[in-house]
Amino acid sequence: MSEQWLDDIKWTADGLVPVIAQEADSGDVLMFAWMNREALHLTAQTGHAVYWSRSRARLWHKGEESGHQQVVTDMRLDCDNDVILLRVKQIGNIACHTGRHSCFFQRLEGTTWHTVEPVLKDPDSIYGNGKHP
Amino acid sequence: MSEQWLDDIKWTADGLVPVIAQEADSGDVLMFAWMNREALHLTAQTGHAVYWSRSRARLWHKGEESGHQQVVTDMRLDCDNDVILLRVKQIGNIACHTGRHSCFFQRLEGTTWHTVEPVLKDPDSIYGNGKHP
Repeated sequence: MSEQWLDDIKWTADGLVPVIAQEADSGDVLMFAWMNREALHLTAQTGHAVYWSRSRARLWHKGEESGHQQVVTDMRLDCDNDVILLRVKQIGNIACHTGRHSCFFQRLEGTTWHTVEPVLKDPDSIYGNGKHP
Repeated sequence: MSEQWLDDIKWTADGLVPVIAQEADSGDVLMFAWMNREALHLTAQTGHAVYWSRSRARLWHKGEESGHQQVVTDMRLDCDNDVILLRVKQIGNIACHTGRHSCFFQRLEGTTWHTVEPVLKDPDSIYGNGKHP
């Protein structure tokens, strides 16, 4: 994986890059995650989002348990070469492990975070065990 | 600043939280930055985006030099309470220090990053000295 486009990225000291996943059609910001070099390479190669799970310290093929893959339509890099914007088609319309469309479902109203998006599918029925995707 | 909504956030070990700024009307993802507790508090209090500049280790009132402030229309928190999505009205239509609308102006085409968004205003005329906002 000596590709120049991967070398162009300013990886963190941990070898990661932050990634914003945005739904291409709606413009909705779906989630935020991290990739390492292998994850980004696999994402480009397969056309499906592959992240690096920091909590599990392993590659995480988005949708590997839930079936809610993200098909990449466009990949962008920011001005500082240290953040990726992934524009995707979200399979199943659910990006969040809570069963919601987007992970950003808590809205600040006054001085309280309110849940403003519905659960589209019970996580237990998505994952069986209710665990994180 | 003992507000519960600030305590709800899972700050990094450095006391920061990643922030995605999205243009409310267009849905365009404009930039990615960080906030500390004071920056987030000021953002909510003033209704204008205030970030924490890691490179300069100080509060950064977005637009303080360029005039390109971000007026907050909506603030969201993700499922893990560790990422903020700021929906904003971008004054001047320019979020990026390069003079472009969005910081995500490099698109992966094949195996090369291509600049696909125009410079709307010469950074030298925005900042005088061409420095980062």
